Amino acid sequence: MDEFSFINSIKQHTYQQSSVVKGIGDDAAVFRQSSQDIVIAKDMFVEGVHFSRQTMEAYHIGYRALAANLSDLAAMGATPAFYLVAIAIPDNWSSLELDQIYQGMKVLGKKYKMDLIGGDTVSSSELTVSVTVIGYVGSGGARYRNSAQDGDIVFVTGTLGDSQAGFHILNNPGNYKNEAYFIKRHRMPTARIEFVKALKDCTRLSLNDISDGIASEATEIAEDSDVHIHLYEEQIPVSKLFTQFPPNLQHKWKYFGGEDFELVGTIPKNEWSIVQQAAISTNIRLSQIGYVTAASNVKDRVFLHRRNGTIERLDKKGFNHLRR
Amino acid sequence: MDEFSFINSIKQHTYQQSSVVKGIGDDAAVFRQSSQDIVIAKDMFVEGVHFSRQTMEAYHIGYRALAANLSDLAAMGATPAFYLVAIAIPDNWSSLELDQIYQGMKVLGKKYKMDLIGGDTVSSSELTVSVTVIGYVGSGGARYRNSAQDGDIVFVTGTLGDSQAGFHILNNPGNYKNEAYFIKRHRMPTARIEFVKALKDCTRLSLNDISDGIASEATEIAEDSDVHIHLYEEQIPVSKLFTQFPPNLQHKWKYFGGEDFELVGTIPKNEWSIVQQAAISTNIRLSQIGYVTAASNVKDRVFLHRRNGTIERLDKKGFNHLRR
Repeated sequence: MDEFSFINSIKQHTYQQSSVVKGIGDDAAVFRQSSQDIVIAKDMFVEGVHFSRQTMEAYHIGYRALAANLSDLAAMGATPAFYLVAIAIPDNWSSLELDQIYQGMKVLGKKYKMDLIGGDTVSSSELTVSVTVIGYVGSGGARYRNSAQDGDIVFVTGTLGDSQAGFHILNNPGNYKNEAYFIKRHRMPTARIEFVKALKDCTRLSLNDISDGIASEATEIAEDSDVHIHLYEEQIPVSKLFTQFPPNLQHKWKYFGGEDFELVGTIPKNEWSIVQQAAISTNIRLSQIGYVTAASNVKDRVFLHRRNGTIERLDKKGFNHLRR
Repeated sequence: MDEFSFINSIKQHTYQQSSVVKGIGDDAAVFRQSSQDIVIAKDMFVEGVHFSRQTMEAYHIGYRALAANLSDLAAMGATPAFYLVAIAIPDNWSSLELDQIYQGMKVLGKKYKMDLIGGDTVSSSELTVSVTVIGYVGSGGARYRNSAQDGDIVFVTGTLGDSQAGFHILNNPGNYKNEAYFIKRHRMPTARIEFVKALKDCTRLSLNDISDGIASEATEIAEDSDVHIHLYEEQIPVSKLFTQFPPNLQHKWKYFGGEDFELVGTIPKNEWSIVQQAAISTNIRLSQIGYVTAASNVKDRVFLHRRNGTIERLDKKGFNHLRR
């Protein structure tokens, strides 16, 4: 396999999106969009930092890399349309594994009718995947972090901490209940694309996807909206067998673990029923976990009301690259 | 410096493009484009493969990474609008160097009124930069590789082989003439954006940028257009002091070296004067280097007419990643 035949092997022969003008096969791709806004996000995923061959098979690396980007589109209220993949591949990855990385992305591409329209393929000493995703949203309809207001309900989709639990199981082999569930949540997270589509009638909605832990993501909403957010420990949703893990790990994973790719959002009370209906129609778990208050200072942003009645400040403590 | 303060440090406070709706600071960026086609390209640039600290300073790494992507936009006939940067950074790069990488991109961003609207920042053991660029082109106006026809003139901008000569000088210190010129051509290539803009009245034009060597790029045009391309050795443009290098290296760098980021194109004879005028108005060197003939077979694509009268087939022999 060489670079050119590899590019041929991943090239789509037909495109699902009618807005594509030119896909893979020239210096760049071309598309056309006159009625909607264009949403674009880009991520990077590095062997040894984000994953290892012990925790991910090739298929999962591709799946997760695209899913993480789809989650960014979901958090903007956008519908996926295209993706581009730049990949740096070491010698010790086989052609088959390389193919499986792309298969992991293709299955999501097919699910959401996304087209692979470009990218780059280079050699390296550690596997690095960078995905760029493009989606569409009605003109002016993107959902930002800056829309929370005093009195809003704070909600979250799904359950929190599962991805880190799966990662823990992979790195600490033992006798766990429901291993497969947690491992799947780590390797194959689900972006909440359909749920967000069902929220289109909300007039004001802030959204953020949980890539760095809810403490960090809720803080971003609170900062950008200049509000306080109050969360209730007893309302933070966890999966059925999450309590099998030590309490200190549960706490860490739930609030600071991240990579669950669930959504945290805020909504005015009078539109809460739209969100509830969206959860029912798309068959996902939805939890009211707190409320928004006006900001009385700019230092404290998110408060956790513990089961024991104490109130703690929740700080941004998610994974922070570059910390030296 | 941590990830979040770093992102703040690179964030633009104002945007130059009126089509930007949301830049850096949410889950994704948003822009709006109703009258033109959108062109997107993505590259990846790896320490130890594409560059080393011996051959590039931090500033050049950023400059060259964005310039290479701009060259793809030029080869599509597009005007740059946005860029996104995903970067994986090892511990042994300082905050200052990191800042200089972005400075190298910013200077080009300013030159072309491009906005940095997103990306990702992660840690790693080798520096990897992936740039995504977005540009605009009049609806249906993108320039592809498939437009060459029998009788067209083949042209190239600038001079070929200089980047590889610069790379050679950096890796083989010695007593060369005009070192600074060759090194600059390697570290700070110029995408031919203005020249391509001046070609807007051409009715039929194929374009490809020379990232992998003219043998490879001309072959791509010949294959996609199903034609033969004839090139004349004596017409291939080289810079004044290029002849100081050994003839075998000159040959290799000119035809197979790449990374000059010049443009090779084909144009009908009756529109050659538009191309000549564009070169004059944008002050770049332009050379007619050959012509296009109808394809008589699909195996041979590009022929080099040597000074000694012989004709050789020029194969794709540029740098090929993944070759195992």
